[in-house]
Amino acid sequence: MGRDERRQGFCALMGDAPCWMHLYDDSNNPEMTNTNKSLDSFFDTNDARMEQELFEFLRIPSVSAKSDHNEHTAKAADWLCKSMEKIGLKARVYPTAGHPVVIGEWRNAPGAPTVLIYGHYDVQPPEPLNLWTSPPFEPTVRDGRIYARGSVDDKGQLYLHVKALEAHLTVRGKLPVNVIVVAEGEEEIGSEHLEQFIQEHKEMLKCDAVVISDSAMFAPGQPSILSSLRGLAYFEINVVGPTVDLHSGSYGGAVVNPAMALARILATFHDENGHVAIPGFYDDVIQWNPKVLEGMKKLPFDEENFLHETGAPQLGGEKGFTTLEKLWARPTCEVNGLLSGYTGEGAKTVLPSKAMAKVSCRLVPGQKPANIEKVMKAHVAKVSPAGVTVDCKHLHGGNPWHAELSGPIYDAARRALATAFEKEPVIVGEGGSIPVVGDFERILGVPVLLVGFGLPGENAHAPDEWMSQENYRIGMRAMARLLDEYSALAGAKS
Amino acid sequence: MGRDERRQGFCALMGDAPCWMHLYDDSNNPEMTNTNKSLDSFFDTNDARMEQELFEFLRIPSVSAKSDHNEHTAKAADWLCKSMEKIGLKARVYPTAGHPVVIGEWRNAPGAPTVLIYGHYDVQPPEPLNLWTSPPFEPTVRDGRIYARGSVDDKGQLYLHVKALEAHLTVRGKLPVNVIVVAEGEEEIGSEHLEQFIQEHKEMLKCDAVVISDSAMFAPGQPSILSSLRGLAYFEINVVGPTVDLHSGSYGGAVVNPAMALARILATFHDENGHVAIPGFYDDVIQWNPKVLEGMKKLPFDEENFLHETGAPQLGGEKGFTTLEKLWARPTCEVNGLLSGYTGEGAKTVLPSKAMAKVSCRLVPGQKPANIEKVMKAHVAKVSPAGVTVDCKHLHGGNPWHAELSGPIYDAARRALATAFEKEPVIVGEGGSIPVVGDFERILGVPVLLVGFGLPGENAHAPDEWMSQENYRIGMRAMARLLDEYSALAGAKS
Repeated sequence: MGRDERRQGFCALMGDAPCWMHLYDDSNNPEMTNTNKSLDSFFDTNDARMEQELFEFLRIPSVSAKSDHNEHTAKAADWLCKSMEKIGLKARVYPTAGHPVVIGEWRNAPGAPTVLIYGHYDVQPPEPLNLWTSPPFEPTVRDGRIYARGSVDDKGQLYLHVKALEAHLTVRGKLPVNVIVVAEGEEEIGSEHLEQFIQEHKEMLKCDAVVISDSAMFAPGQPSILSSLRGLAYFEINVVGPTVDLHSGSYGGAVVNPAMALARILATFHDENGHVAIPGFYDDVIQWNPKVLEGMKKLPFDEENFLHETGAPQLGGEKGFTTLEKLWARPTCEVNGLLSGYTGEGAKTVLPSKAMAKVSCRLVPGQKPANIEKVMKAHVAKVSPAGVTVDCKHLHGGNPWHAELSGPIYDAARRALATAFEKEPVIVGEGGSIPVVGDFERILGVPVLLVGFGLPGENAHAPDEWMSQENYRIGMRAMARLLDEYSALAGAKS
Repeated sequence: MGRDERRQGFCALMGDAPCWMHLYDDSNNPEMTNTNKSLDSFFDTNDARMEQELFEFLRIPSVSAKSDHNEHTAKAADWLCKSMEKIGLKARVYPTAGHPVVIGEWRNAPGAPTVLIYGHYDVQPPEPLNLWTSPPFEPTVRDGRIYARGSVDDKGQLYLHVKALEAHLTVRGKLPVNVIVVAEGEEEIGSEHLEQFIQEHKEMLKCDAVVISDSAMFAPGQPSILSSLRGLAYFEINVVGPTVDLHSGSYGGAVVNPAMALARILATFHDENGHVAIPGFYDDVIQWNPKVLEGMKKLPFDEENFLHETGAPQLGGEKGFTTLEKLWARPTCEVNGLLSGYTGEGAKTVLPSKAMAKVSCRLVPGQKPANIEKVMKAHVAKVSPAGVTVDCKHLHGGNPWHAELSGPIYDAARRALATAFEKEPVIVGEGGSIPVVGDFERILGVPVLLVGFGLPGENAHAPDEWMSQENYRIGMRAMARLLDEYSALAGAKS
């Protein structure tokens, strides 16, 4: 694909946002090149140690969803705090009503802009354990990949920023901009207390741009900047019939089976074409700019490889949309978990007392978790049969997000990525959710840059999660450079 | 309800079988009464000890479905064997390809008929453990009920026969008939090896009648004889999509969700009126005699109490049938278990790799497990969506059964129950399955008497399973008397 074609793709994806490609050809100056040589040699000398430090971080099983892991989650916060203090940040653990927030600050560049780097130190539960090739909390390198729960989501991507700061502070004794690192411990459970934390510490968190690395590049060696995220509305549906599991012979046929009732409720969530059939579900979906969709189609998406990654016999989903549209531009309704009755070895003839489903909807720009909660609850109530009690609980939600992609932080990112990866970045969407992105943008009133170093097939949230060793290394260099580029560009503009 | 009405009910339930009510008023003779006094005083003296012995039996967690319990299942067989030897039976544990069969024999009544008493020493898995008020394998008496896994299904009901034999052998030094006790260890997992065992030991098991206590009485104080059982076809359905659980954001929408696919498959099993919608499912169902159904309607069934027992908000099931019809005369299709994805605390946004359902059909006379397997597999294959692999495995099956209710063993049972409970027995159906009943009848060519001492709400297969202390005590007396009555009637007839 030629460069002009690719440019067209980027601009199209940004819809009516101003195109920032004009900044491309004037990124380097001799001064920056010299100091970057020192940074580069620092990274060359310290890569192995900085990987070992990440391993230490990864060994702490900071599973935020499980209260019996609270001790480990707290330990990860402390470890990170100390690690930031060691490199010269002023660091502190802030308690919240849930897991703590760790703040690291460096404010010794008066007049320079301030960058807020956000990440999370909590991780997804590792289950099912038997599907891990090596233990989830014992980082193991195989074929250039660091396998561990949290390697890519998000400890590795958070920590490479900390190491980028260390490089600056060690080589030059200072940072080119002011920096605030915000690391939370509840991202995997909906960042329940972060919005309030941002509100309450709005002054402390005042900045010119937010940078987040918690996503993936479009392909290996292909740096990427994220322009959109899906939101989330997560539910737990509990169907209760008899008080206890009953003998399916003595009672079966006259008592409504909660597991069958649940299956029938879930089966009403889609029509035969994979469209969500919950009335009102699509009401707030914003019509995407046809040019944006056109740009999406031009990205070199390897559908064959995507299918291979999943291991599924074939792809599926909503009819009438491309795979990237389904992933980035269309909302979903998924079952995340099912539990009812007897699930062990062999046969047990019970009529289960209850059945549970975890159900979550990925939302696209325009949709709001509160409205989805409303239509979901109304629908479940409407389709629930008599003979069982059905409870639909909204566990948590997050807003979808869409970036304008204009301004110095995006320009700086493009330059830093192009230099570090020796390849121009592409603009992509993301099917996952980072609910706090919208919070930062709204409360702090600044742009948010999403620049990720994961890779397709990285198994985030699944067994054998991994991060590319190379991306960890280049990511550090790119994020060190980002600070220089941003300092130059934001300074020039202000 | 008057006595004549009830009689009419019984006869109607038997369809065209000869009515045995004419035997009612000549059951006792002075001789029998005298020896029964000695038996009664034996029971009075030994009730407490015999309950303690049952407790010992109940403490052995002989869960046949779980291979890690094999040691306990073997222990229960040995314990029962020794217990039968102690009272004077010739007892032996027979290995099978699965769990062993325990045989106890007493053949010192030449010329007298032979009764085969069948029961099972294996139990259902006790899970979920947290719903038990007292531990499942620590028998505990509360309000006249013996709470323990296996108390009523079937250790208690099997053991009361052993204690009835002990009473005869201790008081009189002999039994009025020849007796073979057959106790298997695989009833709860489909009696996989019993049919072969009966075939291979056909000569040893030769008898004139089979007696089984593995069912419930119609109501407290109301002795009952069973005229029908439902059969079973038990399936496990496994739906597999991606190789591992995927991030529901990064993949959701483009990959078929196995849990949702499973729900949609299960939802096709019934129509909106609760009829099973699997093509061919009802093909072999025999049209029940309208008089039989009429008789069923006359039984004093307490629907309110039945509902209360279940704890469900209201009853349900197939439209157009009464509750007893639904339980005894109509086949079902139930979900016994569901498992997929993340089922722990909180939220985990996975697109599950696989989803599993345990599904079983209760069958009524005419239906055959092999045919149901065929129509179920064909239907599941037809409704399975692309994008996932669906496997429907038949775990085991058992034929339904219907008794003629004519002959000396039924007459003897009626007399023995009427005397012991001081109330005339009623004829009932049973929604559960005892697959071996049909095997005994077919292979040995003799009638099978099903006389149960459980009670509605006994929680067989569920947490807090219990057996009535009174039924255990009166059951022993009734079954001791049954042998006398049968000896008298079968002798007179041959």
